[in-house]
Amino acid sequence: MRLATVSSGGENICAAVLKDDRLLNLSKAAHHLTGPAAEALKANSMLLLIAGSPETLDTARNLVDDAEAGLLDAAILPEGADLLAPIPVIRKNVLCVGRNYAEHITEGDRAQKQQVGVTEYPVFFTKPPTSIVGPGGDVLTFPNVSKQTDYEVELAVIIGTPGRNIAKADAMKHVFGYTILNDISARDVQRRHGGQNFKGKAFDGSCPMGPWIVTADAIDDPHALPISLTVNGEIRQNGNTADMIFDIETLIASLSEGMTLEPGDIIATGTPSGVGYAMDPPSFLKDGDTVVCNISGIGTLTNSVRAV
Amino acid sequence: MRLATVSSGGENICAAVLKDDRLLNLSKAAHHLTGPAAEALKANSMLLLIAGSPETLDTARNLVDDAEAGLLDAAILPEGADLLAPIPVIRKNVLCVGRNYAEHITEGDRAQKQQVGVTEYPVFFTKPPTSIVGPGGDVLTFPNVSKQTDYEVELAVIIGTPGRNIAKADAMKHVFGYTILNDISARDVQRRHGGQNFKGKAFDGSCPMGPWIVTADAIDDPHALPISLTVNGEIRQNGNTADMIFDIETLIASLSEGMTLEPGDIIATGTPSGVGYAMDPPSFLKDGDTVVCNISGIGTLTNSVRAV
Repeated sequence: MRLATVSSGGENICAAVLKDDRLLNLSKAAHHLTGPAAEALKANSMLLLIAGSPETLDTARNLVDDAEAGLLDAAILPEGADLLAPIPVIRKNVLCVGRNYAEHITEGDRAQKQQVGVTEYPVFFTKPPTSIVGPGGDVLTFPNVSKQTDYEVELAVIIGTPGRNIAKADAMKHVFGYTILNDISARDVQRRHGGQNFKGKAFDGSCPMGPWIVTADAIDDPHALPISLTVNGEIRQNGNTADMIFDIETLIASLSEGMTLEPGDIIATGTPSGVGYAMDPPSFLKDGDTVVCNISGIGTLTNSVRAV
Repeated sequence: MRLATVSSGGENICAAVLKDDRLLNLSKAAHHLTGPAAEALKANSMLLLIAGSPETLDTARNLVDDAEAGLLDAAILPEGADLLAPIPVIRKNVLCVGRNYAEHITEGDRAQKQQVGVTEYPVFFTKPPTSIVGPGGDVLTFPNVSKQTDYEVELAVIIGTPGRNIAKADAMKHVFGYTILNDISARDVQRRHGGQNFKGKAFDGSCPMGPWIVTADAIDDPHALPISLTVNGEIRQNGNTADMIFDIETLIASLSEGMTLEPGDIIATGTPSGVGYAMDPPSFLKDGDTVVCNISGIGTLTNSVRAV
C-alpha cells in the first residue's frame, strides 16, 4: 500500500494511493466505521496512522480494496491535490547515515584528498524538521551562505513499532515502510563547522521527501532496489541499495542502542556515488535546476532548486 | 519571571514560580481573562506560551504580581508537584555547540592526544527529544553500550521569536529565556561513529534540563554567569559564561544561516572545563551518582544516575 499526505482545500489529509494513482481520502473513507482502527484513520495524521495498531493498516487496506472496486467514489480526492512530505510533522530530527556506499566513500575521499575509508561503526547525524519539503517543493539555495549545494538520493526507512536496544534479528519488525529522501548538503558549510555534518545539512528546503510511503509488506527486499538521481535529465547517481555497507538491520540496531526509536522516525540510509562535489570538475545545484530521485518499487521525487 | 512545566494530578501544567518558590498554575490563574494572551496561557503548553505575543508574557507577569499579593491563592499548586523539563515537547532536536570554552578545548585535546584547538566556526550537533529528562529525572547509563558516561553543564538559550539569517545585532531580540542543560555524553560511543557526535550524545536520559526557564528580561548579562557542576558533592566544573568563545549572538546568527529557528528551539551553548573523561585518571558517572548543575541567576538542576 502507498500512503501519502495531501493538501486539499487548506487541510492536510491522509490518503492511500490507488493502483491508477487516484488518491483515497482515508478519513472520509473510514467515516462510517467505528473502533480504534477507524479512529486512527479519521484523525488525518500520518503519525497517528503509523503509530496505530496492525488493524489500522488492515482497515486502510480494506478501504483501498473497496475503492478500487468502485465502492468509495465519494472519498476519492479531486485531481490536482498537492502531495506533501508524507510525514509533515515529525517527532525527532531525520536520522541520517553518512558514508554507507563504498563507491561514494571512495569518491569523497578522492575529492577531499583524505583516506578515511569505511568506518567501523555507522556515521550518524540529523536534519531538522524545518528542512523537510514535499514532492514538487523547492530545494532552497542561499548564495550568501553556501556556493556548494549538492544532492544525495537515499532510501528512507520509516519506523513503525517503537523500541530501544533492538536486536538485528528483530529490526525489520520495527519498519513501517519506505520513502525517498534527498539529503541536500551545502558542502562548504558542512566542512567548516569543525567536521560535524549538522550545519551544512540543515538548511530550510534541504530535505525533500516523498512522494509517499510504501508499506513494508509491499517491498520484497529493500536491499535490492535500483536508486538513481538526475539533474535536468542528466543521470548523476545510479546505484542499488544492495550496496549499502551497513544494512537496515544494522542501522536500526546501532541507532537504537540506548536511544528509543519512535513511530514515524525516519532513517535516511546513505547515498550511492555520483554526488556533484566529487565530479571533475565539481558541479553544484543552481537556481532553476530540476532534481529527480527515483527508487524502483517506491516512485519518483521531483524538486526544483530556488535561490533565495 | 521563572516559568516551569509541572506534572500535577496527571496533567502537564504551565506554571510561574513565585518569589517564595510556590508554583502558580497559569492556566487556572488566567481562567477569568479573555483575549489571545489569556488563551495562550489557558492552553497549558509551554511551546504556545513561548510562541505567544509579548502580551502573553505581560499577562503572565500581571498574574504573578497578583499571586504574590495574595489575590490568586486558588491557583497556587499544592506542594510536591513535580517539575518536568520546562519544554516537554520540542519541535526540533536540541541544538548543541561543542568546543566553546578554551579550557575545555585544551583538556579535550590533551585527553585525546590531538591538537585541534579553537575552530574557525562553531561546532554544531543535536540531541533528540527522547533524550530530555526533567529536574530529578534519571540520567540513564547503558553499561552494555557505553562504559564512559560523562557530564557537561551548559547554559541553554530558548528561542522566542522565529527567524532565519538573523543578524548578530538582532540576535538577542530572538531570545525568550534561559535554562540549564546537562549534555550527558557517552565518550566511547561519541568517538567511534566516524567522528560525528550525535550517536554518543543521543541516549535516553542524556539531556537533563531545567529546573525552569528564566525569561530574558530577568538576566542582566547572560555572558557573566557563574556555571558549575558537582558529582556527589565534589566540584567538577566551575566556570563562567563570560568564557564562551562564540557568544550567544554569534551562535544564533550562525545557526540561523539558511535554517529557521522556531519558538521553543533550544541552543545549548557549550561546557566549561572539568569533564570526567579529561580527568587524570578519567572518572565517569556510575549508578547512584548525584549530579548537580548550577547557574547563577537561573537555579539548580539535580539528577540521579541509574544504570539500565
